[in-house]
Amino acid sequence: MLKVGIIGVGTVGASVANILRDNKDIIKARAGVEIEPVLGVVSNLSKDRDVTIKLTDNADEVLNDESIDIVVELMGGIEKPYEIVKKALANGKAVVTANKALLAYHRYDLEKLAGDIPFEYEAAVAGGIPIINALRDGLSANNIKSIRGIMNGTCNYMLTKMINEGVDYDTILKESQELGYAEADPTFDVGGFDAAHKLLILGSIAYDVDAKPEDILIEGIQDISPEDIDFANEFNYTIKLLTIAKKIGKKVELRVHPAFISNDEMIAKVDGVMNGVSVIGDKVGETMYYGPGAGGDATASAVIANIIDIARRGKGAPMLGFEFDHSENLSIMPKDEIETKYYLRLRVEDKAGVLAKIATILGTKNISIEKMIQKPLNKTCAHIMLSTHTSVEKDIMDALNAIVDAGVVTADPVMIRIED
Amino acid sequence: MLKVGIIGVGTVGASVANILRDNKDIIKARAGVEIEPVLGVVSNLSKDRDVTIKLTDNADEVLNDESIDIVVELMGGIEKPYEIVKKALANGKAVVTANKALLAYHRYDLEKLAGDIPFEYEAAVAGGIPIINALRDGLSANNIKSIRGIMNGTCNYMLTKMINEGVDYDTILKESQELGYAEADPTFDVGGFDAAHKLLILGSIAYDVDAKPEDILIEGIQDISPEDIDFANEFNYTIKLLTIAKKIGKKVELRVHPAFISNDEMIAKVDGVMNGVSVIGDKVGETMYYGPGAGGDATASAVIANIIDIARRGKGAPMLGFEFDHSENLSIMPKDEIETKYYLRLRVEDKAGVLAKIATILGTKNISIEKMIQKPLNKTCAHIMLSTHTSVEKDIMDALNAIVDAGVVTADPVMIRIED
Ligand SMILES: NC(=O)c1ccc[n+]([C@@H]2O[C@H](COP(=O)([O-])OP(=O)(O)OC[C@H]3O[C@@H](n4cnc5c(N)ncnc54)[C@H](OP(=O)(O)O)[C@@H]3O)[C@@H](O)[C@H]2O)c1
Ligand SMILES: NC(=O)c1ccc[n+]([C@@H]2O[C@H](COP(=O)([O-])OP(=O)(O)OC[C@H]3O[C@@H](n4cnc5c(N)ncnc54)[C@H](OP(=O)(O)O)[C@@H]3O)[C@@H](O)[C@H]2O)c1
Repeated sequence: MLKVGIIGVGTVGASVANILRDNKDIIKARAGVEIEPVLGVVSNLSKDRDVTIKLTDNADEVLNDESIDIVVELMGGIEKPYEIVKKALANGKAVVTANKALLAYHRYDLEKLAGDIPFEYEAAVAGGIPIINALRDGLSANNIKSIRGIMNGTCNYMLTKMINEGVDYDTILKESQELGYAEADPTFDVGGFDAAHKLLILGSIAYDVDAKPEDILIEGIQDISPEDIDFANEFNYTIKLLTIAKKIGKKVELRVHPAFISNDEMIAKVDGVMNGVSVIGDKVGETMYYGPGAGGDATASAVIANIIDIARRGKGAPMLGFEFDHSENLSIMPKDEIETKYYLRLRVEDKAGVLAKIATILGTKNISIEKMIQKPLNKTCAHIMLSTHTSVEKDIMDALNAIVDAGVVTADPVMIRIED
Repeated sequence: MLKVGIIGVGTVGASVANILRDNKDIIKARAGVEIEPVLGVVSNLSKDRDVTIKLTDNADEVLNDESIDIVVELMGGIEKPYEIVKKALANGKAVVTANKALLAYHRYDLEKLAGDIPFEYEAAVAGGIPIINALRDGLSANNIKSIRGIMNGTCNYMLTKMINEGVDYDTILKESQELGYAEADPTFDVGGFDAAHKLLILGSIAYDVDAKPEDILIEGIQDISPEDIDFANEFNYTIKLLTIAKKIGKKVELRVHPAFISNDEMIAKVDGVMNGVSVIGDKVGETMYYGPGAGGDATASAVIANIIDIARRGKGAPMLGFEFDHSENLSIMPKDEIETKYYLRLRVEDKAGVLAKIATILGTKNISIEKMIQKPLNKTCAHIMLSTHTSVEKDIMDALNAIVDAGVVTADPVMIRIED
C-alpha cells in the first residue's frame, strides 16, 4: 500500500482525495498497489468540506509521518510550498504538485534537490491534458521545433465570446467573474502570467532552458478590441492568447501574447475554457493535445496519474495497462444490442402508400424518426433519407429486412450510424 | 550503452535506424544512455536502401546476439513476427513493435510471455500520436467512458476529399492509390480492419477486454455515396470512419464503422490523412489527441519513444526531461530579436499625407506591408489596419515610436503578432 498526504485540500486537493476513494479499484488494478490518501492539510479546519479524508492544519504532521510515501502539494503560492516540498524531499518522500508558479521559479533547484526521488507535476500545465507525459515521454525522440499552446482557460473563454458574440472586453470580463471563470483580480490570467508559468515548464522539457517569468515576453489580452477581431476575421484569422516556445538556431523564443492564427489550424479550433497544445517535432511533425485546463476533477486526474506513475516506478507501466486482473470482468456487447442513432437511405418507387408502409414498419420496431427528407431521383423513383432517435441495432436490422421483404425499396437500403 | 536490433528495415525500420543516428545526442540526453542500432534484418539484402545500419537476412543473428538488449519488430505480418518476438522474449530481450495485427490477435499471450520484460507498442495505434502513453499513463486515474478514434489515414483522406470536393468513392480510391495513400488491394484499410486492430488494443488498455477482430462489428467506407454526404451536411454532420470503445453497464462496445458526427466536435475537425482520438474519462472529461497516424519518421518517433522509455526503466523519466545536460546550451532569444508577422492598428487624422508618412516610416525600418484596410471612424479620424510580412520586433517597436513621434496618430498604436 502507498500512503499519500495531501497538503492543500481545496478545489484540486479535495478532488484528489475523493477520486482516490471513488476510483480506488481501477486505480489499484492500474497501479499494482493500493493508494490511500491518509491525511490532508488545510489552513482553516472549521470550513465545511465535501471530503472524507482526515484533516489537520499542521503540515508537519504529513511531512514527518514516516508512513507517508508521497506528498501532494496543492496549496498554491510560491515560497511556502517551496519550503514544504523541500522538506518532503529531505525526508525522502516523493512529491507531486500542480503548482506552476512554484515550478516557474524553482524547477531547476527542485530537480537538483529531488535527485532520484520522484518529483512530478503533470497537472501544472494544461490541467487534465497529459502534455508533460506527451512531451517528456511520447515525443522524446524528437528535436522540438516549436510548441504553441492555448493554456489559459479564462482568456480563451473571454476571447471566444468576444469573437463569436461580439461582446466587448469589459462586459465579458464581468461575466467571467460572475461565472467563476475569472478571479476578482483577473491580472494573473488576463495579463498572461499564468500561461507564462506553464510555458516556462514546457520550455525546459523541450529545450532545457532555465528562464523565469521576468526573462520573457508576456502580454495579456486586455487591449483586444472589436476592430482587431474584425480585421482578423476578414483575413481568416482567429485571436488566441498563445504561448510559444520555438528554437531558432541556438536560441529559444519563449513568449506569451495574443496572436492572430489561421482558422485552418487545429489549434485555432480550441474554443471556450478548453486548452490545447500543438507540438512540432522534427520527426513526428505536428501533434496536438486538447482538453480541460482546469477544474478540480480534471486537474486531479493528472495529479493521480503522477501518483500511479510513482507507484509503477521500477517496473514501468503494465503492458496492457492493468497490473491486476480488472475486477469488473467486462464482456463484449453483442452487435445486436448496440444502441445508437441511425441514418437510413431508402430508394423507393415514387408512388402513394410507400412512405406509410415504411413508417409503419419502423413504428412496429420501436424506431422513431427524428428528421426526414424525400427527394425525387427520376420519373419513377425517390430517395427517402431519415435519421432516427436512439434505437437498438437489432430493431434496425429487422426493420430494414422487413422493408426489403415488403417490396417497397428498389435498391438495398443504406444504413450509417450517427454518433452524437 | 543500449544495443538495438531492428527486424524489418522497411519504411518504419529505416526511419528508426536513421533517427537513432541523426538525433543521437538529444536521445542520449533524454534517455540517460547511448542507444545504438547495431543490426537490421531484411528479407532481400540486395535491395538499395538509404540506411547506414549493418544488415543481415537472418533474424537469428539479432535474436541470438547476447549483446543486443532490445529487439524492434517492424516486419509486419502476424504469425512470423509472433514467433520472432516470442523468441526475443525467451532470450530475455525487451521488445518494441509497431505491429497492430500481431497485437490484435496475440496481445494477451504476449503480455503473459513478457512478464517483467518490457514489451512496448506505442506506434501500433495512431502512428506518431502518443495515445498509448496518454491512455495507459496520463489518464490512469479514470474509468474510461468512451474512446472515439479516427485511426485510418487512408479512409480519412478519402472521406475528406469526398466531402470537401464532391469526388466519388471510385475516383478518390484511384487517386489515393496513385498517391501511395492506399494499397493496390485497399480492403484492409477501406474495409475498417486496420482501424479495428488498433481499436482492440485501445479496448484492452481501457477495459481489459480480450477480443479478436472477428468478435466485433467492422464496416468499411465502400458504400458511402454523395447522397449520404449531402444529408450529413444538411444537418451539420460530417462522416468519419470511427472506431468506438464504450462501456455500458458491464458490457463494452467495440465497433468500427462510418459514422455521422457533429461538425461541432473537435474530432470532426480531424481531416485528411491525420488521425485523432477522443477519450472521455469519468474524472477528466474529454481529452483529444491529434497527429500523423502513419509515415516512416512519424511512426519511428513512437517506436523510439518506447526504446527511450525502456532505457529509463527503473528510474522513470527525468523530472525536466533531460538526464544529462543538454549539449546544445541554448539561450533565450532577446525580445528585440523576435521575428514574426505583425498586425498594426493606427488611429489617424483623416487627411492627406498621413498614409504616406506612415508608409515611409515602415519602409525605412524594413517593414513591408502585406495587407491594409483604411476605415473612417468619424468626421476627422480613420483607422488604418495592416498586416506586415515577417519583420523584426525591434524594427516594429522603432517604427511605432517613430509614428507616434511624427504626430500622425491620435491614439496609442495597437500591435498584435501574427503566427502563421
Ligand atoms: N483549480 C484548478 O483548476 C487548478 C488547475 C491546475 C493547477 N492548479 C494548481 O493547484 C494548486 C491548488 O489550486 P486550488 O484551486 O485547489 O486552490 P484552493 O482551492 O485555493 O485550495 C488551496 C488549499 O490549500 C490550503 N492552504 C493554503 N495555504 C495553506 C497553508 N499555509 N497551510 C495549510 N493549508 C493551506 C487551503 O486551505 P483552506 O481550505 O483551509 O483555505 C486549501 O485547502 C495551485 O497551485 C493551483 O495553481 C489548480
Ligand atoms: N508504414 C507506416 O506508416 C506504419 C505505421 C504504423 C505501423 N506500421 C507497422 O509497422 C510495421 C512495418 O511497416 P513498414 O511500412 O515499415 O513495412 P515495410 O516497408 O514493408 O517493411 C517491412 C520490412 O520487413 C522486412 N521483412 C519482411 N518480412 C521479412 C522476413 N520474413 N524476414 C526478414 N525481413 C522481413 C522487409 O524486408 P525487405 O526490405 O527486404 O522487403 C522490410 O525491410 C508493420 O507491422 C506495420 O503495420 C507501419
